[in-house]
Parts: sequence; structure tokens; C-alpha cells
Amino acid sequence: MTLETVVAAARGDIPADLLLVNGQIINVFSGRITAGHIAVKDGYVVGIGDYDAKKVTDLAGRYVSPGFIDAHVHIESAMVSVAEFSRAVVARGTTTVIADPHEIANVLGCAGIQYMLRSAADQPMDCLFTLPSCVPATAMETAGARLKAADLEPFFQHPRIVGLGEMMNYPGVVFKDPDVMDKLALARRLGRPMDGHAPGLSGRLLSAYAATGISSDHECTRPDEATEKLEAGICIMVREGTAARNLDDLFPVISPDTWPRMMWCTDDRHPHDILSKGHIDAMIRKAVKKGLDPITAIRMATLCPATHFGLGDVGAIAPGKKANFVVFSRLDDIRPEMVFFRGHPQAEDGRLLPHVTRPAEIPIPTSIHLSSSALDFSIPAVSPRIRVIRALDNQVVTDCDIMDTAIRAGMAESDVSRDLIKLAVVERYTGHHGIGKGFVTGLGLKHGAICSSVAHDSHNIIVAGATDAEMKTAVDQVIRMKGGLCVVSGETILTALPLPIAGLMSDQPMEQVEVQMERLLLAAKKLGTPLSDVFMTLSFLALPVIPALKLTDRGLVDVEKFTVVPLFQ
Amino acid sequence: MTLETVVAAARGDIPADLLLVNGQIINVFSGRITAGHIAVKDGYVVGIGDYDAKKVTDLAGRYVSPGFIDAHVHIESAMVSVAEFSRAVVARGTTTVIADPHEIANVLGCAGIQYMLRSAADQPMDCLFTLPSCVPATAMETAGARLKAADLEPFFQHPRIVGLGEMMNYPGVVFKDPDVMDKLALARRLGRPMDGHAPGLSGRLLSAYAATGISSDHECTRPDEATEKLEAGICIMVREGTAARNLDDLFPVISPDTWPRMMWCTDDRHPHDILSKGHIDAMIRKAVKKGLDPITAIRMATLCPATHFGLGDVGAIAPGKKANFVVFSRLDDIRPEMVFFRGHPQAEDGRLLPHVTRPAEIPIPTSIHLSSSALDFSIPAVSPRIRVIRALDNQVVTDCDIMDTAIRAGMAESDVSRDLIKLAVVERYTGHHGIGKGFVTGLGLKHGAICSSVAHDSHNIIVAGATDAEMKTAVDQVIRMKGGLCVVSGETILTALPLPIAGLMSDQPMEQVEVQMERLLLAAKKLGTPLSDVFMTLSFLALPVIPALKLTDRGLVDVEKFTVVPLFQ
Repeated sequence: MTLETVVAAARGDIPADLLLVNGQIINVFSGRITAGHIAVKDGYVVGIGDYDAKKVTDLAGRYVSPGFIDAHVHIESAMVSVAEFSRAVVARGTTTVIADPHEIANVLGCAGIQYMLRSAADQPMDCLFTLPSCVPATAMETAGARLKAADLEPFFQHPRIVGLGEMMNYPGVVFKDPDVMDKLALARRLGRPMDGHAPGLSGRLLSAYAATGISSDHECTRPDEATEKLEAGICIMVREGTAARNLDDLFPVISPDTWPRMMWCTDDRHPHDILSKGHIDAMIRKAVKKGLDPITAIRMATLCPATHFGLGDVGAIAPGKKANFVVFSRLDDIRPEMVFFRGHPQAEDGRLLPHVTRPAEIPIPTSIHLSSSALDFSIPAVSPRIRVIRALDNQVVTDCDIMDTAIRAGMAESDVSRDLIKLAVVERYTGHHGIGKGFVTGLGLKHGAICSSVAHDSHNIIVAGATDAEMKTAVDQVIRMKGGLCVVSGETILTALPLPIAGLMSDQPMEQVEVQMERLLLAAKKLGTPLSDVFMTLSFLALPVIPALKLTDRGLVDVEKFTVVPLFQ
Repeated sequence: MTLETVVAAARGDIPADLLLVNGQIINVFSGRITAGHIAVKDGYVVGIGDYDAKKVTDLAGRYVSPGFIDAHVHIESAMVSVAEFSRAVVARGTTTVIADPHEIANVLGCAGIQYMLRSAADQPMDCLFTLPSCVPATAMETAGARLKAADLEPFFQHPRIVGLGEMMNYPGVVFKDPDVMDKLALARRLGRPMDGHAPGLSGRLLSAYAATGISSDHECTRPDEATEKLEAGICIMVREGTAARNLDDLFPVISPDTWPRMMWCTDDRHPHDILSKGHIDAMIRKAVKKGLDPITAIRMATLCPATHFGLGDVGAIAPGKKANFVVFSRLDDIRPEMVFFRGHPQAEDGRLLPHVTRPAEIPIPTSIHLSSSALDFSIPAVSPRIRVIRALDNQVVTDCDIMDTAIRAGMAESDVSRDLIKLAVVERYTGHHGIGKGFVTGLGLKHGAICSSVAHDSHNIIVAGATDAEMKTAVDQVIRMKGGLCVVSGETILTALPLPIAGLMSDQPMEQVEVQMERLLLAAKKLGTPLSDVFMTLSFLALPVIPALKLTDRGLVDVEKFTVVPLFQ
């Protein structure tokens, strides 16, 4: 819409496209709720008041809020494409997300970012992005790409790029890693916000981190931690993901003094959570139930993230803002009954409206360059004692155990009687078939194998199994699917979920992915695992930045020593 | 300072330059006041806590706040250069101003903006600028320049330019004037804030104005006006200038809901006011006396304008922010006892410290292209009745009177017995010696003449006098001074103030300008004027955007009809 058109429509010289009448309008600027009509032209609010319009929708006295904003999310964690993610969350009132394509960038580099940008066009909500700052996440594994400041720079010209993504390499910041400094200097030069990720950072190290200009953090777990960061100039994103949930703990920090620099985010939320609990709407409901003023809860989902990211045209219902609205009946239990995006209704009562079209999927290059015939899972036994990863239920950390090697014909093997299961991480990018091998306890498999191409943060293929043959069968299946998850018993694929988008995301609706995930977890339980989500646990066994013992394609990593260690003691 | 240095200093690897110990630190992010020490390196805060430092300054338990920000000011109104303005206001706690060089741009165009930008270097505070959006202010007068969007565009690259200056041509916005649309479109394209100026605008016209993205206003005079604008997405700058003072009226609008989008500004403040009352510090004191929480009052002078203009490195005491501080003893009567700019003390107890150097004045082209010999002040009488401007004390508006012409030898003359004084506006830019002539009542001159090159907004030379000869003598003096003010009686220059910088500003200290202004007003009182500030009144007699009857170089302007009208009825 041209400026001339917006002015003409605001003046009433030309009719509005839509007039939403009889709303109780939540004004995030003044904190007031005012009865009124909202005029919309070409997807933008042009005025509040009496206007001629081509179409009139009566809100019958219901509340109308600006559409919700997720200040920080990895869409990859929802295991679906941008199209399917958009359709799922817009139905729950989210009309803007600030997504960090960190996972797909670790797999496909710039091609992954480009894929996400292209996928974001013509969706029923605004998908904006920060640029992944930490690809690869560490030097102790092989990722699909290595992105330097010069690789990121051209992307900043794209209108969907709002800033630099979470700088999770906080040691790299406080130890002045040149690559990290380059990326921060680039974002500073361009005047773009830089998101942070600094769990537990405090004192002088926090000062060093904040002094670079990094201006948000979504990793706070304690009120004192959040207050210290807030006072250092860092905006606090309160997170409720599937694994990490901080709203209860950080609730005391939200006050009339602090809300302008606080906001909501989901970070990583799995299909089941989004479908059963909701998205940002669920955080608002939870906060209001805990006693937060509903207007403040809404501001933290609208005005605050818009201000933080410098998004002048979202986060409020006012002239010149995008006509993104959420309509609901009760302030004490905000459930989106109607959702508008750019002036068009997209969803009612949590369900997408049938007229909402789904853009075609964007082609994406394959990310798996592997042939299982080249893989050898055998481990010649060289000593009677081995380092073993101890997996813990609902945890991303592990312990490091020392156990007796199970030796058969000179080879170290799984021993299901002692819950000692062979684990391998197969490098999927270079075609060199690099493989790290080790053992895990705690998965509880009695037979069969489980395999996944979701393995943080480099997303090589991780497989755990009772026999080498079953491990190979499982990896074969993942290769055939171009990525995904599967459960194998003997020569049989019990069930599988293809994730053809970078080995991370399905191209199917979120509901189908959820059903298939349930089947996978059920099949894994039948193999004997007691874990509540063995695939989530599995996916973190390869993440070498979280203690204590992890496995990458380079081998076992002692995270505390930040080095690769031998399997045999 | 490089990022590497700031990180090293924050970590304590290298000593700080300065440690301010035992301060009660006002944290604008959390609203808390915390005891602590502030470490400064290379002009930036690097941390709060115990640090080694080359120098230690003990605040002895006094409060320390971020340096104050004036969100909108015309330095020209202080009648001194950037250097002298900076020295005056930093002593009062102001360490950043957002100045709109509207007046000098009307005189010198791009050369005026360039002069201000160059003058801002190496001053004891940060002088940032918005780009004048309305040069010339109207088409009914001859200004020194005409600035289109293409003229402004290159300036946006300059690091001191933060946005587009107040769009006072609000009719041009709501009537879609192409030049205005171009300037707004330019600022939008570059993602820069656009300041507003829309007194009394309401309803659909306000919606049209706000829908363009203009995001501030400093012209509110009533609480309901401010609330309506705030709810339309416009940040409210509460103004206390010399003429227009709105703090009392707008005070009820400030609340825990609204403060994040409200801030203080002075707009136009004369030397006497700055020297006797203060600057932003005076507004904070006044607001706190009226009952505002001191932290909120300080935030409106720090965090809020910094957020509004996207200034990430000022407005707070936190790592990575400029070390701009104000130290004071009482929250209920905040009087700057020490002022730091970039880590260096600049002032104590309202007085500049002797070590603060004064950069050399920047050369500026002359703006007066006139020879008084070419001027003819005579007015052949063509009718017995004339339109007369009625000047009103302390008002920028005038009335339009109809009076009998005083005719001598066929010429219309002044008649001091009826307080009918001849008025002329002489165009000073083109060398064409255009002159508008008329009469004013209310000035009260019994003899002599007063003359000024400050005449809003085009700043042609305005002169009022009892005789043509005295008017000519006065204009001669202003030409000789390359601009300024003078009072003439007969052939004698009673007193004069040279304003060699664009005919608007002195190159002398503000204290000297104040003294000279007092002398001028006293001399004018001796000529008979009852007005409290006859030069201020005079300067608005040429402003053809404020009712009712004004005089420009093109002639008498009926502001309500927006047209030039004849002197004789």
C-alpha cells in the first residue's frame, strides 16, 4: 500500500476493506481497553472509528488484541515446514515469529537459510528471521556448513532478516574469538539487534557479554539471574519450550518497572505441545492465571518484542500497523476465537479456516551424502573398561560412567542385560563416512535399534542398537527417507517418520507428525526403553556443549575438558 | 574502542580508566537503585563492581543517573553556537540532545545542516540531529533554501543523523503533498524515526498522520490530546520551552502504563531560561515536585528517548553504554553536582570545569545578501483604511485589526499616538531586495526602531519603526553585523546583538548573550514598548502558519485564508 492510499483511507476518502465493529480494543500503548471499530485497508489498520467499508464484521463486544509475537523460536523443533508451522501457530493467535534457523543452517548453511526465507513467503503469518550466529556450534564435530561473518552479511539486506541470532557461543564472546567478534561487529555496524544465549552467565563475564551490545537472553532460569541480566541492559525473553520451561521461575521478575523489556518466546516446542497446549497464547493464559495483569501479558507478546526488534508495523492496533488481530471473550482465559492476519481471517476457535491456501513447498537440496554399505559399526576391543554415556530422562545433560566392556570375538558389543547399548554418530555431509562410536546406558533397549537425523547441533545421524546389523538397517532406512526417525527390530522397520527437509522437518501437517511421533515412541517403548521421549534424549547425546560425556562423529567428547577422549580407558 | 578492548576491560583483564565508587546507581531497566562502583574504559561503562582502575572517584553515597537527553530541541532558539549551547546544557546534566536544525536550514539549506554537523564534533556532549523536513516552512515567503527528499537523502548516512525532523507541515501530510510524501517515504525506506508536530490534530486526520509512521509529537497541550495521540502509536514528548510549556497540562497522562512512550524535550528555550532555570534537569525537578516518581522522571530523560531514537549506547548505566552520568544528592530535588561525558567530568555544581576545551568555531557562509541603499520603506497611500497586525504579549498568534491610515504627503506612515507602527520584512537571501510592508499595533513604540534577523521560519529581516529613516538605520546595523538584533533611536544604535551565525546565533558565550538581550529589551522598553519580550513577539510576526495576520517578504498573509492580502482595504 502506498503512503497516499493509507492517508486517503485513514481520512475516509476511500472505503476501507473491512470494518471490525463493536470490539473492546486492547491498546498496548496506553494500557486502556476502549470500545470501537477498527478500519482496515490493504492489510493495514487505517483508523479507529466510524468508517465506510466493503465488509463489516461484528465482534459483538469481544476483546481484540494485536496478533501475538513469538520473540524467539526454532521452527525446526516443531519438525514441520514453515508452511505447516505457520498454519498451526496462527490458529493459536501467533501472527509474527522471530525464527532462528540455527538447525537447518548447521545442516545446509546458506542454502538452508535461503530455503527458510523463500518458504516464508505467502504464509498466513509473518515469519521473520535472525541469522544463525553459531554454525558450526563447536569444533568437535562435523557440521554441514561453516558460516562466517562474510557469509551472513548479504542476508542482512533481506527484509525478513531482523538481527543476529542467539550468540550461544558465549565463551567465544568473553574469550574474544575472532570469528565471533567479526559477527558481532557486523551486526553492530548495520545497527541490528543481536540476540543472546548465556545460561548462568554473571558478574564480569556477563558484563563482557552485554558490553558487546547483545541485547536479549532467553536462557534465564532464576529470578536473580534475570534481574542481573535485565540490569545489564539485556531484554529478557521468558521461555516456555517443550523441554525448558521458565515462566514459573521468572514470574516474580515481571513488574510495572520491567515489563517494557520482557517478552515471551517458545524457543523449542514440539508438535504435541503446540497442538495440545498452544503457543504464545498458552504462555499468556498461564501468566494471567498466575496473577499477571492481562494487558501486561499481552504487551509482552506484542509491543515489547516489536519494540525490541524495531518492528514499527506490528505489535499494536493503531493506524499504519498490520491488521493482525486476535479476538477472544475472556481476559482471564484468553483463547483465540478469531485470528486475523493482514486483515483476513485465518482461523476460528483454534482451527485454520478452509479458505487459507498453502503455498507450494520450496525445493531443497538433499543433505545426506551417505551409503550405509560404507559404514562399519564394529569396535575392536582394546581394553576391558570403557567410558559410557549415561542418558537421563528429560535431561539434556548426561553422566559419564565407567563400565566393563562386553567382548565377543574380540569386538566390543552391546550387552542388553546390563543396558549397555552401542551408539554411533555418522557424519552425513561430506561423503567421507566419518563415524564416532561408543556406548550408552539408560536407553533401556532390550533389542532392535533407534535412529535419527535430528542430533543437535550438527545433526549427523545418531543410532543406538543392540546389534550392528539392526543399527545398519536403521541407518539405511534414514538414508532412504532422506532423513528422519525410525525404530527397527531385526530386519523389520517397525515404524518411521520421514524428515525430508534437511533431515529435520517433515513436509506433512503437524497433526500427522504428532501421530507418527506417538507411534515411534510406542515402538521404542516396545523395544524396552523406559524414557518418556527417547528420541529427544537421543538427539542431545550428540551435543558436545552440554555436560558431561557426548558422542560426535569425531568420537567421545568430555565436555568439561572440552576435548575428545578415547572410548577405552 | 574495539569490541576486543571492551570485553577485556569488562573481564578485568586490563585496568579501567576510571572507577566511580560508592554511588547509588539508578538502573533505568529495573527501576532499582543499587549501591555499587562503575568502571569506565575509553569513555564507555564496562562493568559494575570491583575493578582495578587508573583513577578512582568517590561519589560518597550520592546518586548517579545516566546523562539526560533532550528529545527535541532547536539550538538556534538558544541564540548561541553548538559549542556554547553544549557548554551551557552539559553543566545542567544534559549529555545528549536530538536537535532539529530547522531554523538554520531555512537560512542556509544544506550548508546550514553541514555547519551544524561539523560544529557538533568534539563538544562536551553528544549533539545528534534530525533532518529538517519543512524547508521552506511555507510557500508564502522567500526562504534561504528549498530542501527536497533528494537533498536530505545523503545526510542520512551521517552518524549524527538519527531521523527525520518534525513534520510540521501536517496539512501537507493529510493532503498528500508530493514533496512531503517523498520525505516520509525516504525515512521509511531507511527505517528512520520520523518526528511529528501536529497541534490539535485529532480523529481521522490524526489517524492519517500516524498511519504514515510519524512516531512522536511535542505539541500536545491537553491530556486528552496526548492520550489520543499516544493510543494512535505516537510517542509523547512533553515540552517545556520558553514560550510553550506543557508539563503541567500533560502531567496526568504520565503513568506506569504510559511512561515507556513519553519523554521530555525543551523545543525552544532562550538563554535566560537555560541559565536561570536549567534544561532537562529543570523538567525532572518540576515533575518530581508535582509528585512523579523520580525514577520515572529520569527514565523519561534517558531510557525512553534512547529507545525511541534507537540509540543503543546511551540512556542507561550498563556495560557498553557511554559513560555519561549525572551525580546528585537528593531524589526529591535533582540538581546536577557532577556531570560526566564519556567518562570525563565536565561540570560541577552547574559550572563547566576549566579544563573543558572549546573547539574552534566552524566557518559559515554569510546569509545576508542585501544593501540597505536599495531598500525603500515608503508606502504610497491608496486608501484610508488598512489591515493592521495586532501583536499580543507572550503570544505567537496575532489579531487582524482595521485602522485608519495615517497619511502624510501621500504616504502611509507610522502614527505613534495611535500605536500604529510601520513594519517591514526584507528578503535577505536572493539579492532581489524583496520587501513586504505593513503596520503593527501593540508594540507600543513611541519613537525609534527595532530590527531582527530572527523572524520565523524564513528568518528574513524584520523591522518596526516610527520613521523610515530609523528603520533603515536599524536594517543597516543588522546588515553590518551579518545578522542580529538592534534598537535604534534617531541615528543612534542604542544597543545591538550580533548574530553572525546565519543571523540566528551568536558566537559568544550564552551568559554574554543573555546580558545583551537584557540590554536590548531594556532599550526597547525605553522606546515605549510594554511587551515583556518584544523581540520574541517581533520574530513571530513573520510566521505565516500561525493565525491571524502576518507579514512576510511577499506581503500581508491572512493565515486563515492561507493567502496574501492587500494592505489597503
